[in-house]
Amino acid sequence: MATNKAIVKARPGMGGLEFRDVPIPEPGVGEVLLKNRAVAICGTDLHIYNWDAWSQKRVKLPTIIGHEFASEVAAIGPGVDNVKVGDYVSGEGHLVCGHCDNCRTGLGHVCYDWKGLGYDVDGAFRHYFIMPAMNLWHNDPSTPPAYAAVQDPLGNAVHTVFRVDCVAKKVAVYGLGPVGLLAISVLKAIGAAEIFAFDAGNEYRMDMARRIGAHHVADVKKVDPVRYIMDLTAGHGVDVVMEIAGTPAAIQSALHSVKMGGDVVLLGIPNQEVPIDIAKDLVFRSVSMHGITGRRIWDTWFKMRGLLKSGSLHLDAIITHQFAFEDYEEGFKLMQTGNCGKVVLTF
Amino acid sequence: MATNKAIVKARPGMGGLEFRDVPIPEPGVGEVLLKNRAVAICGTDLHIYNWDAWSQKRVKLPTIIGHEFASEVAAIGPGVDNVKVGDYVSGEGHLVCGHCDNCRTGLGHVCYDWKGLGYDVDGAFRHYFIMPAMNLWHNDPSTPPAYAAVQDPLGNAVHTVFRVDCVAKKVAVYGLGPVGLLAISVLKAIGAAEIFAFDAGNEYRMDMARRIGAHHVADVKKVDPVRYIMDLTAGHGVDVVMEIAGTPAAIQSALHSVKMGGDVVLLGIPNQEVPIDIAKDLVFRSVSMHGITGRRIWDTWFKMRGLLKSGSLHLDAIITHQFAFEDYEEGFKLMQTGNCGKVVLTF
Amino acid sequence: MATNKAIVKARPGMGGLEFRDVPIPEPGVGEVLLKNRAVAICGTDLHIYNWDAWSQKRVKLPTIIGHEFASEVAAIGPGVDNVKVGDYVSGEGHLVCGHCDNCRTGLGHVCYDWKGLGYDVDGAFRHYFIMPAMNLWHNDPSTPPAYAAVQDPLGNAVHTVFRVDCVAKKVAVYGLGPVGLLAISVLKAIGAAEIFAFDAGNEYRMDMARRIGAHHVADVKKVDPVRYIMDLTAGHGVDVVMEIAGTPAAIQSALHSVKMGGDVVLLGIPNQEVPIDIAKDLVFRSVSMHGITGRRIWDTWFKMRGLLKSGSLHLDAIITHQFAFEDYEEGFKLMQTGNCGKVVLTF
Amino acid sequence: MATNKAIVKARPGMGGLEFRDVPIPEPGVGEVLLKNRAVAICGTDLHIYNWDAWSQKRVKLPTIIGHEFASEVAAIGPGVDNVKVGDYVSGEGHLVCGHCDNCRTGLGHVCYDWKGLGYDVDGAFRHYFIMPAMNLWHNDPSTPPAYAAVQDPLGNAVHTVFRVDCVAKKVAVYGLGPVGLLAISVLKAIGAAEIFAFDAGNEYRMDMARRIGAHHVADVKKVDPVRYIMDLTAGHGVDVVMEIAGTPAAIQSALHSVKMGGDVVLLGIPNQEVPIDIAKDLVFRSVSMHGITGRRIWDTWFKMRGLLKSGSLHLDAIITHQFAFEDYEEGFKLMQTGNCGKVVLTF
Repeated sequence: MATNKAIVKARPGMGGLEFRDVPIPEPGVGEVLLKNRAVAICGTDLHIYNWDAWSQKRVKLPTIIGHEFASEVAAIGPGVDNVKVGDYVSGEGHLVCGHCDNCRTGLGHVCYDWKGLGYDVDGAFRHYFIMPAMNLWHNDPSTPPAYAAVQDPLGNAVHTVFRVDCVAKKVAVYGLGPVGLLAISVLKAIGAAEIFAFDAGNEYRMDMARRIGAHHVADVKKVDPVRYIMDLTAGHGVDVVMEIAGTPAAIQSALHSVKMGGDVVLLGIPNQEVPIDIAKDLVFRSVSMHGITGRRIWDTWFKMRGLLKSGSLHLDAIITHQFAFEDYEEGFKLMQTGNCGKVVLTF
Repeated sequence: MATNKAIVKARPGMGGLEFRDVPIPEPGVGEVLLKNRAVAICGTDLHIYNWDAWSQKRVKLPTIIGHEFASEVAAIGPGVDNVKVGDYVSGEGHLVCGHCDNCRTGLGHVCYDWKGLGYDVDGAFRHYFIMPAMNLWHNDPSTPPAYAAVQDPLGNAVHTVFRVDCVAKKVAVYGLGPVGLLAISVLKAIGAAEIFAFDAGNEYRMDMARRIGAHHVADVKKVDPVRYIMDLTAGHGVDVVMEIAGTPAAIQSALHSVKMGGDVVLLGIPNQEVPIDIAKDLVFRSVSMHGITGRRIWDTWFKMRGLLKSGSLHLDAIITHQFAFEDYEEGFKLMQTGNCGKVVLTF
Repeated sequence: MATNKAIVKARPGMGGLEFRDVPIPEPGVGEVLLKNRAVAICGTDLHIYNWDAWSQKRVKLPTIIGHEFASEVAAIGPGVDNVKVGDYVSGEGHLVCGHCDNCRTGLGHVCYDWKGLGYDVDGAFRHYFIMPAMNLWHNDPSTPPAYAAVQDPLGNAVHTVFRVDCVAKKVAVYGLGPVGLLAISVLKAIGAAEIFAFDAGNEYRMDMARRIGAHHVADVKKVDPVRYIMDLTAGHGVDVVMEIAGTPAAIQSALHSVKMGGDVVLLGIPNQEVPIDIAKDLVFRSVSMHGITGRRIWDTWFKMRGLLKSGSLHLDAIITHQFAFEDYEEGFKLMQTGNCGKVVLTF
Repeated sequence: MATNKAIVKARPGMGGLEFRDVPIPEPGVGEVLLKNRAVAICGTDLHIYNWDAWSQKRVKLPTIIGHEFASEVAAIGPGVDNVKVGDYVSGEGHLVCGHCDNCRTGLGHVCYDWKGLGYDVDGAFRHYFIMPAMNLWHNDPSTPPAYAAVQDPLGNAVHTVFRVDCVAKKVAVYGLGPVGLLAISVLKAIGAAEIFAFDAGNEYRMDMARRIGAHHVADVKKVDPVRYIMDLTAGHGVDVVMEIAGTPAAIQSALHSVKMGGDVVLLGIPNQEVPIDIAKDLVFRSVSMHGITGRRIWDTWFKMRGLLKSGSLHLDAIITHQFAFEDYEEGFKLMQTGNCGKVVLTF
């Protein structure tokens, strides 16, 4: 094993990343040393890069960032029996206790004591890093590392889509960032009846949504999405809305464009309180709202594996750019423009 | 058939009820004439009695009020084959179209075109009235009319409790009006692990909650319900909260006392918008909120029938007062004091 | 309205169909007169044509056969408010009571008192026929009559596939008759991970299965399907087996090729008792078996509508032949060869 | 730590148990040493005692038997962080791999590689024994050891009852051994509408079923259970049948006494193949059969905890006998008579 370069958020403020030599760690009891083949840049990494309010509160400096990875097992610690050296793996970036009631009933993504790889503890943007064995996931050998590296955001999309039943249903997606686009791809793969896709002005991503197969794509800067949906649904609304934009306006539109008895799934993160008309929009219309974070451990991962295997999920349309690991700064700058899908760094 | 007396909301303002002679109607195609044995006063009837903002907007004067009933079939119209003269029935007070997608998939309570018996159209508080045959429900002969007459609010409670899985779960109920008390009775009947019951100062109803079997009962005027629950749940919160109080404060407490990954069921009706911290309270905690109205047609009614049959549901504790039909004014005045459970009027 | 020709099973024994003039009926209360645009021949019609044991026991002579149809509303009876003259409809061929507990909870396909159109009562193979209004289903104007006419068997396939969760799962289909092929098409549309398709020697249909997109297709006359599946699933078996062949051998293979904790869905109809090793194959392996008949009313129909709308369901590959209504005999003879998918008769 | 006495199946044939000194083992990585406070005798232990066909095939001699226990943590091995010395625990007797797809999706009871404590490996009938930490379950301090020790069979009952929805439903239980009686107690706690209980002649246990609260109890040696149920359900049958008798006759009665669209849950273990009329009893009636083994890990355990906490589960009626650990032979002999509920051995 040679050198171990890492991308470190080292200083407050915009950017502030350093490309540092760090030691290659030794796996302890139940731990595994991984050697990366590809990693991908998450919106969360961009938040840290931009040093926004959330980052300032949550992340201690310096921290090695990154949590989306496709790797090879380089060494295993004592008591590890689920992977062996040479295995091709990705893994769950929520580090969980494994024995609270949420962990033991399929809700590990909201373990009472979870920590986030790459922001609560040092992350995956380095050649070698350590993961708990129980967090690892065997990739199918036929899955390219670039695909395997985006299972974390794909998992967010899968979790969002599978939170309620979307098969053969009319579904609207507000917000066409990478997770929104992945959600459309998943909806397409599972036979959603009609997919409505909305963005606030990003033509690049609206084009991507059309290519992926959304049935109706519109710009909320030009049309009222509620009226747009009502016109195409006999005035009833869609069965499900996925709110991934995170703005108060999108949340209100979500509530007003879902049918009575329908579901609004929330993955977008507004940075302020949103006034909700509980009586009119939720109670009398019998509507549910569902907050989503992370991925079901492991239900979401099995659904991803199955969809990847089906051949119906087209990730090439969404992984728009790949850079060498050391050229990471280009990736971050590109993501700031918004004119990209997922950005992958390869080793 | 003799006279037909009806309770009519005839004038705006508080009270304004009249006891009038009205004609005995003739059942048309698919309709049934019912002769009442017992009716019960709903909170909705009290809203109309009090002529609150909702009533003023929704109810045209004069309207015969009432929608909770236990009756006998007095005559049937052409094409009716599911009931016969003499049958002992109650029925669903949501008058629905029967063929929209919600009606055809078990969500008839949010039919796109439903009307409310006793506020959108003339209601059940009279000796004889007409119902669509498809809205009727056969009561078990062993069910007393007073019990049969409260299946509408019991159905609200059953719908609320069954909206998410509460069996063997920790559940908090905010708001101990009749539906809150009925919900506790249902939770008790289906083996909820621990029932937390909160009211804002009504000692009479907190005592009822204790007698029905709530494990923990507290007054939100004296204790902080969030801290109270956290102290008794190792800081995690309950699996499910039923918000039946309808105040912004109760809704905030509901969101802060449910566990990560838990559910908040909303039946209470706040009369203003409530600011919700979507990011912190819903998304990051993976919490769902579910608006509830009416009863599932007919799933909720079958659950009620089963629970009544089980012998585990103790309605006597909740039906605290019965008056003769013509003494209805006493019932309304009693309900305004809050020192009662369900109030039934008998014929 | 002119003449009304009907296909009548008039005599016992093979064939025995007559093309007769019959009166155009008048719709009664709640009834609708339909004018056909296309009908399709079901395996059940072929059973009656062949006058097999089931037919001899169930069907009284003479009976107008047929229950798969796409039609136009020609007239409506009193009390009908869900369709109007000129509407383009298909409908549910199970004539149900509408008010038993199964009918009222989404299980109308096993109504306690259902009758089958075209075998218990006169059927749809005529120019004009009567249906209860509540059995009708509005087709999307963009759906060709040939597609709309096969929603009954497509509905069997959808009901079978949706009986348990097949999205992103490994699924095996035993028996590649029209319903088996439709099931594969549905599985493909909803993102099944891997589809295994088996037939007993019919090359024509195995080719169709490949074209529709089954991932693995094999002939049980040449390979042992259990070993075939085990070799491709690390010895664990598939998540779900759909048994549509109806032979004791296929049922045994189904039980032995499903994974522990998996599901076997049964639509095939063996004509004898099958010895089952309850302890070894069901209890210790925690396997479920689910009998399927008909279609969920109306849940299955909404799923069909959504899948048709999605654009992911490719019925052209399965509707292989169309004949003029009066040339029905050709259709029956073709179906007996097995070298066809669905056979449609047009008006 | 002093001596460690163990109950060992040492010789083939009836009985053949020895009370031996065995070493106190040392916990390895991820393991825990437990000191017993109470254990309970399972039907499986009795099978081994009787040395029946199953035992002869599965159990190697000598084997320390037993898998139902309530214990105290005496020592922990490296890497254990979910329990500490002094904790009061029971645990799951299925020793599973923890990382196969079944283990990772809540189906660990059918792990592809599970081993049974007390028959595949040495068991719990000794003062001190070793368990994997991940198999342990914290008991509520208020639960008496005798109750805590029967969570394995109670878990079978809970798993059986919760396999399909039984709340407010009509349910029949065939076979009133300890698990059948526990199932009735669970059904009672969750509000089953009507409980039908059948045994083949054991008056002692039919009396217990009545005391626990079954609504209808009958002896299949005196009445035909199918006719009995049909007479009390308007000829439709019950919603759910739990088949815990394991005889071909009971399985046939189960299939014939469940309603169309209903569920038969199978926990009984017939020792021969049973001929099933798939077409008539499963397909045309749309009935499901579900094999059950073990307990969901950990879903079943959480349901048990919740039901124990609710106060609605009355185990005293079912734990009929307690003996000192060293008097185990009395317990086995009593169980052979059938005139008991659960038999507990205390330390």
